[in-house]
Amino acid sequence: TTRTTTASANAPKLTFPIILLLLQVIFIILFALHSDYGHEPKTLTEHELFSKVNTLIIASRHRGSVQYPNGTFDPNIIVISEPHRGINDLYSMFQDIHIMIFIGFGFLMTFLKRYGYSAVGYNFLIAAFVLEWALLIRGYMFDFDFDTKKFPIDVERIIVADFVAAAILISFGALLGKTTPTQLIIMCLIEVVLQSVNEWIGLRRFCAFDIGESMFVHVFGAYFGIAVSIMLYDRALTTNTHVEEKEKPVYHSDLFSMVGTLFLFCFWPSFNAGVAAAGDARLRAVVNTYISISASVLLTYILSSVLGKGKFEMVHIQNATLAGGVAVGTVADKIIRPAGALLVGSLAGSLSTVGFKIILPILKKLKIHDTCGVNNLHGMPGILAAVVGIILASMPNYSLYNDNLARSCFHGVSRTPLQQVGYQAATLGVTLLIAIGGGLITGFILRLPIFNKKDVLTYYDDDTYWDTPADFHYIDRQEKDRLIVLERDVLHA
Amino acid sequence: TTRTTTASANAPKLTFPIILLLLQVIFIILFALHSDYGHEPKTLTEHELFSKVNTLIIASRHRGSVQYPNGTFDPNIIVISEPHRGINDLYSMFQDIHIMIFIGFGFLMTFLKRYGYSAVGYNFLIAAFVLEWALLIRGYMFDFDFDTKKFPIDVERIIVADFVAAAILISFGALLGKTTPTQLIIMCLIEVVLQSVNEWIGLRRFCAFDIGESMFVHVFGAYFGIAVSIMLYDRALTTNTHVEEKEKPVYHSDLFSMVGTLFLFCFWPSFNAGVAAAGDARLRAVVNTYISISASVLLTYILSSVLGKGKFEMVHIQNATLAGGVAVGTVADKIIRPAGALLVGSLAGSLSTVGFKIILPILKKLKIHDTCGVNNLHGMPGILAAVVGIILASMPNYSLYNDNLARSCFHGVSRTPLQQVGYQAATLGVTLLIAIGGGLITGFILRLPIFNKKDVLTYYDDDTYWDTPADFHYIDRQEKDRLIVLERDVLHA
Amino acid sequence: TTRTTTASANAPKLTFPIILLLLQVIFIILFALHSDYGHEPKTLTEHELFSKVNTLIIASRHRGSVQYPNGTFDPNIIVISEPHRGINDLYSMFQDIHIMIFIGFGFLMTFLKRYGYSAVGYNFLIAAFVLEWALLIRGYMFDFDFDTKKFPIDVERIIVADFVAAAILISFGALLGKTTPTQLIIMCLIEVVLQSVNEWIGLRRFCAFDIGESMFVHVFGAYFGIAVSIMLYDRALTTNTHVEEKEKPVYHSDLFSMVGTLFLFCFWPSFNAGVAAAGDARLRAVVNTYISISASVLLTYILSSVLGKGKFEMVHIQNATLAGGVAVGTVADKIIRPAGALLVGSLAGSLSTVGFKIILPILKKLKIHDTCGVNNLHGMPGILAAVVGIILASMPNYSLYNDNLARSCFHGVSRTPLQQVGYQAATLGVTLLIAIGGGLITGFILRLPIFNKKDVLTYYDDDTYWDTPADFHYIDRQEKDRLIVLERDVLHA
Repeated sequence: TTRTTTASANAPKLTFPIILLLLQVIFIILFALHSDYGHEPKTLTEHELFSKVNTLIIASRHRGSVQYPNGTFDPNIIVISEPHRGINDLYSMFQDIHIMIFIGFGFLMTFLKRYGYSAVGYNFLIAAFVLEWALLIRGYMFDFDFDTKKFPIDVERIIVADFVAAAILISFGALLGKTTPTQLIIMCLIEVVLQSVNEWIGLRRFCAFDIGESMFVHVFGAYFGIAVSIMLYDRALTTNTHVEEKEKPVYHSDLFSMVGTLFLFCFWPSFNAGVAAAGDARLRAVVNTYISISASVLLTYILSSVLGKGKFEMVHIQNATLAGGVAVGTVADKIIRPAGALLVGSLAGSLSTVGFKIILPILKKLKIHDTCGVNNLHGMPGILAAVVGIILASMPNYSLYNDNLARSCFHGVSRTPLQQVGYQAATLGVTLLIAIGGGLITGFILRLPIFNKKDVLTYYDDDTYWDTPADFHYIDRQEKDRLIVLERDVLHA
Repeated sequence: TTRTTTASANAPKLTFPIILLLLQVIFIILFALHSDYGHEPKTLTEHELFSKVNTLIIASRHRGSVQYPNGTFDPNIIVISEPHRGINDLYSMFQDIHIMIFIGFGFLMTFLKRYGYSAVGYNFLIAAFVLEWALLIRGYMFDFDFDTKKFPIDVERIIVADFVAAAILISFGALLGKTTPTQLIIMCLIEVVLQSVNEWIGLRRFCAFDIGESMFVHVFGAYFGIAVSIMLYDRALTTNTHVEEKEKPVYHSDLFSMVGTLFLFCFWPSFNAGVAAAGDARLRAVVNTYISISASVLLTYILSSVLGKGKFEMVHIQNATLAGGVAVGTVADKIIRPAGALLVGSLAGSLSTVGFKIILPILKKLKIHDTCGVNNLHGMPGILAAVVGIILASMPNYSLYNDNLARSCFHGVSRTPLQQVGYQAATLGVTLLIAIGGGLITGFILRLPIFNKKDVLTYYDDDTYWDTPADFHYIDRQEKDRLIVLERDVLHA
Repeated sequence: TTRTTTASANAPKLTFPIILLLLQVIFIILFALHSDYGHEPKTLTEHELFSKVNTLIIASRHRGSVQYPNGTFDPNIIVISEPHRGINDLYSMFQDIHIMIFIGFGFLMTFLKRYGYSAVGYNFLIAAFVLEWALLIRGYMFDFDFDTKKFPIDVERIIVADFVAAAILISFGALLGKTTPTQLIIMCLIEVVLQSVNEWIGLRRFCAFDIGESMFVHVFGAYFGIAVSIMLYDRALTTNTHVEEKEKPVYHSDLFSMVGTLFLFCFWPSFNAGVAAAGDARLRAVVNTYISISASVLLTYILSSVLGKGKFEMVHIQNATLAGGVAVGTVADKIIRPAGALLVGSLAGSLSTVGFKIILPILKKLKIHDTCGVNNLHGMPGILAAVVGIILASMPNYSLYNDNLARSCFHGVSRTPLQQVGYQAATLGVTLLIAIGGGLITGFILRLPIFNKKDVLTYYDDDTYWDTPADFHYIDRQEKDRLIVLERDVLHA
C-alpha cells in the first residue's frame, strides 16, 4: 500500500535515519573500545569442594597445635567470595522485566484509536535504543575499570539497562502522540544521561534506598516527560475538536491496552525484587509488591465506581490498578509487614484514580498535557513511595537502611536514622530537580526548528510516519456515519 | 465520554464500592493482626559450610575412639533440615501461574462481542480480591501458629492463593455476562472459604493426592459456578434473540480469546508442577502435562472437524485444547508414563469437544446455562482426572500414593491401596457435594433483592457498568446494516 | 452459527481427521513401547555431603601414610559426576521458548485480515503435533538406549522438541494461507524427520557449532518452506486482485501481529542460550543475543524509513527487527564481544529490511511466493549466521570450536581450525541441500490429488475451514463501502 497523504509531505525524510545511523555507528565504536562480557559466578564443583576440604584436613593434621578460636579455621585457606549473582539467580526475573518493557509499556499505550502502530512501534524503538545507550552510560559511570579500560556486561547490567528504558518510556507516555520519532531519539539521548547521573547521586553519594526504583525510574521518568510536554504544548491540544477526537480509544484498542496492564501487574514483583539482595529481602520485595499492587486494584475499582457514578472507566483500570507497585517500590524489600503493603497499595490506587479523574483535567487547563496520565500512575505514586521511604528511614529496625551504607557514603556506616531521613528526602528533591530542569531544557531543544516539530493536526495519527492499511482511512468516515446514525436514533427515540 | 443510557439508571451506584471498601478495611486489620513474612530457605555460605566441616574435623580428632557405624557421624553436630523451597525453586513457575490467572483466564473470556471490558476487567478484580482473601483464609486454616498468633506468607503461599483464584475464576466463567460486580464479590467471599474447607478435608483428612488441583480447583470451580448459574437462570437467556445475539463473538474478540488460550496452554506444566516435590516428581509433572495437553490439542482438532463437518469451531480450539492439562492434573507427578499422558490427554480433548458441541446445548435446554462452557473444560475433564487418580491409587508402585500420607491422616502410613482408592473417591464426592451445595446456596443469596439482580436485557453488555467508547454503540447499528446487506445479497444471488 | 458457503463444499470432510487420528494412535503405541521419563540431576543433600566428607576424614585418619600429591585425594572415594541439568537450570528458559513457539510464531502470523483464526489455530495444531512427533524421532535418532529399548524425556528434550517445532512453523510461514490442514500435517510428518536427520549430520558427524540453531532451524525451515511453496505455486497468487486483496492486513490484525513480534524479541536470548553450556558460555549467549537483536531493531527502523521515504512499514517492524536474533545464533555463545554482536545485528536488520522491500517482490515475479517473507527473517539472516560461524571457526581462541568436538567426530579432537571451517561450511551446504531437496519432494507429494489441493480463491480465507462469526462476512461489504466513500471523497476534494 503506497497511498500518500498531505500529511506525509511534512514528514522529515532523512533526519531520522541519518541521526540514528550516526548514533549506532558511535555506539559500535564505544562498545568495541570499552565493553566486555562479565562473568557468571563460579560454582564449586564437587571436585573443587572436596579438594578444598582435603586441603583443610591435611592442614589440620600437619598443624595439630594450631588453635581454632570461635570454631573457625585458617583464613588463608578459605576464600570467602562476595556473593555474585548470575543467570540462575536473576534470569527469570530479568525476562519478566524485559516483557514489562516491551509488551507491558508497549501495549499499555495502544489505547488511542489511531495511534496503535506508533505506540507499540516507538516503544519498541525507544527501548531498543535505550538498552544500547544505557549499557554504555552505565558502564562508564558505574562499572568502568581504569586498569583494563573496560566495563563488564552481565545479567545484572542488562536488568539495569531495562530499568533505564522504563524511565524513558514513562516520559514517552506523557508525550504520546505529540512528537516525531527524531524528537524521541534526541530525548532518549539526553534523558538516559540525566537519569543515570541522578541515580548515581542517589545511590553512590546519598546512599538512599530505592530498591524498586520508584524515585529513580518512576518519579524521574514522569516529571521529565511532563516537563518536556510543557515545552511542547500547543493550545490546539485542548481546543481543536478534531485533535481531541483522536485522543480517544475505540473498543478494541482498549482491550489491546489491557494486555499491557496485565503483564505489568503480574511481573511487578519481579521489577521490585529484581536486584534485591538474595534471601529474605528478596522474598519481602516479592510479597510486599504482590500484596500492594492487589490492594491498588481493589481501591481503583472502588473509586472508579464512585467517581463514575456506578460506571468503571477503562483508563483507571488500565493504569491506576498498577499504582500499588510503584508506591511500594522504594521500601519493597524492607519490613513494612503485609498490612503495611496493603495500606500503601490502597492509598496509591486511590490517589491514582483521583489523579486521573480530577487532577488530570485541571492540569490540562494549566497547559500541562499528559497523554497517558503518567503523573497519576508514576509521578504521584512515586512521590508517595519516596514519602513512605522517608518515614521508614526513621525506623532503623524496619528500614534496615544501614544495609545500603558503604564506605563511599558521606558519613559512612555511622549514619543516624535522622541523617538517613535527610538523604532520602534529598534524593527525592534532587530527582525532581534534575527531572524537571532536564525536561524543560530537553523540551526547549526539541522545539528547535531542525527537529521538525510536528503539525498539531497530525497528532495521535499513525498515518504521518507509518504506511497504514486501507481500513485505517475508513475510521474517520465510520465516525461520521456513526454520529449521523446516533442523531437519527435520538430523533426517533 | 459521559453518555448515559437507560441501563445505567439501574446500576447499583454505591452498593459495590461500600461493600468492597468495608471488606478491604477488614482485610487490612486481619493482615495487621495475624500475617507475617515467611522465610527464604537458608543456604549455607561457603564460610558456614567450612565452619561445619571444621567442627567435624576437630571433633574427629578429639574423639578418636568414637565409633562411626554405617559411615555416619555424630548426629548432634549436623542438622539435616527439611527441604524448604524459596524463590530460586518456585518463583519462575509462580510467575507462569500468575500469568495464567490474569492473562490466561482474563483473555480467554473476552470472546463475547460486547463484554470484553467486563471479561478481562472483572477477571482482574476477582483475582486481586481473591489473592488477598485466600492468603487470609489459607493462613488461618492451614498455617496458623497458635504461639505467635501469626501465619507466614512466602512464595509457596502466594502460589496457593493463585490456585484459589483459578477456582473462583472458573466459576465466573459459568456466570460470564450474567452478574453484577457486587454479586461477584459476594460469590468470592463465600467460595474462597468453601473451596479452602474442601481442600483442607481432601488434603489433610483424606490425604488424597491431586497435585495439579484438578479436583480442588477445576471440579470445584466448575460445579460451584454451574450451581450458582442454575439459581440465577432466566428464561430470556435462551428465548430472547437480542440476548442470544449478544452471546456471540466477533472476529477480533475470538482472536483476543486465543491470547488467553495459548498462555494457559504453555504454562499448564507450571500449574501442575508448581508445588510438586523437587526432583523426579516435578520432572514427571512437567513432562506428563506437556504431553497430555498436546494430545488434547490434536483430538480437539480431530473432533471439531468431524462434528463441524469439515469446519473447526473457535470455541473448541479456545477451550477443549486445554482439557489435557486438567485431566492429567491429579496424577501429573505420578508414574503414568508418557504414553499414559498421551492417552489421558486424548480422552480429555475428545470429551471436552463433544461436551461443547453436544452436551452444552442439552444442558441449556435443561435450564443449566454455562456461558464459557466450564463443564466441558474444567468439570468433566476434572472428573476424568479424579477417575484416573482413583484407578492409579490401586497401583501403589505407580501412584506412589504413600508419599502423601502423614501421621495426621486417618489410618496413617499403614493405609492399603484399596483404602487410598476409597479416599480418592471420597475426595471427589465431597468436592462435588460442597461445590454444588455451596453453589446453590450462594446462588440463592445472590438472588436476594439487596444484591440488585441484573436486568436480563443488560446481559453480556459492558455498557451497564463501564464507560464505553463511541464505536461500542455503533456495533448494534452495524449489525443491522450487515443483516440488510446480507439479505440483499441473498435476494440478488 | 451454521452458515454454509459455497467454499465449504470443497472442504475435505474426513481426510484430515482420519489421518490425524491414525497418526495419534501410532504415536501412542510408539510412546508406550519406547519412551520413559528422564531424571532430574541428583543434588547432594547436606546429609549426603557430610557423609562423604566423613568418609574422607576416616580414610585420611586410617591411611595416615598415604601420599597426597598435588593436594588431591583418593579418586576412589569421590565420584565426580558429569554436569547434568534439570528444572532449576533449564525450566525458565524452556517456558520462554515455549511461549515463542505458541504465542510468538502464532500471533506473528495473524497479520492477514481474514486469516487470523487459521494463522494462530494452525500454528497451535502444527506445534502440538510436532512436539509429539519430534519427541519420538529425536528419541529414536539421538537418545535410544539399545539395552533398555527406551529413550528418555526430560526438560532438555522438551526444549529440543520446541526447537524442531520452530523449524516447521517457519516453513508454515512461507505457505501461510495457501494450504489445507491436511497438507500441513503431511508436511510436518516429513519435515520433522528431515530436519532431525540434517541436525544429526551437522551435530554428530560434522561436529559443527550452532548453539541457537540458526542453520538447523532457521535456514532449514525457511528454505524447506520456500521449496514447498514453489511446488504449490499458482499464478492467481500474483494476478488475481481478489486474492491479492486478501493478502493484506487490517489495522488491528497488524497489532495482533506485534504481540507475536515482541514476545519473540524478548525471549530470543532464551532461544539462543537455552541449551548452551552453563557458566560464561551461557552468559555470552544471553548478552550477545540481547545486544544483537536490539541492533537489528534500530537498523530496521533506519532502513524502513529510508526505503519508505519517511514512512515505516509494519511488516518490517514485525519481522526484520528480529533478524539480529537469527544472525547471531550460530555464534551466540562464542567470544564475539558485544561490539561484534552489535555489528552482526546491524547487518542482519539491514539485510532483512532490504529483503522485505526489494527481494521479496523480485522473488514473487520469479514465481517464488513467500507469504510471511521467511526468506528475509529466517533464510538470509540464517545464512549470515552460518557465514559468521565460518569466519569465527578460523579463530580458535574466539570460537572455542573444540568444545564441540568429541571422539565420535571425524578427526576427533585433533581437528584444525581450517578443518572446522570446512565442516561449518559443509553443514550449511548440507542443510540447504536437504531443505530444498526435501521441500521440493514434499511439495510434489502435497500436490497429489488425494491431499485435496485448495481452490486458490479460498486462499487467505478462514471461512473455508473455520466456522466464522457474522462480522467476518461483513468485511467484504465494508471494503466495498469504503472504496465508494473514498472515491466520493476524492471527487469532492
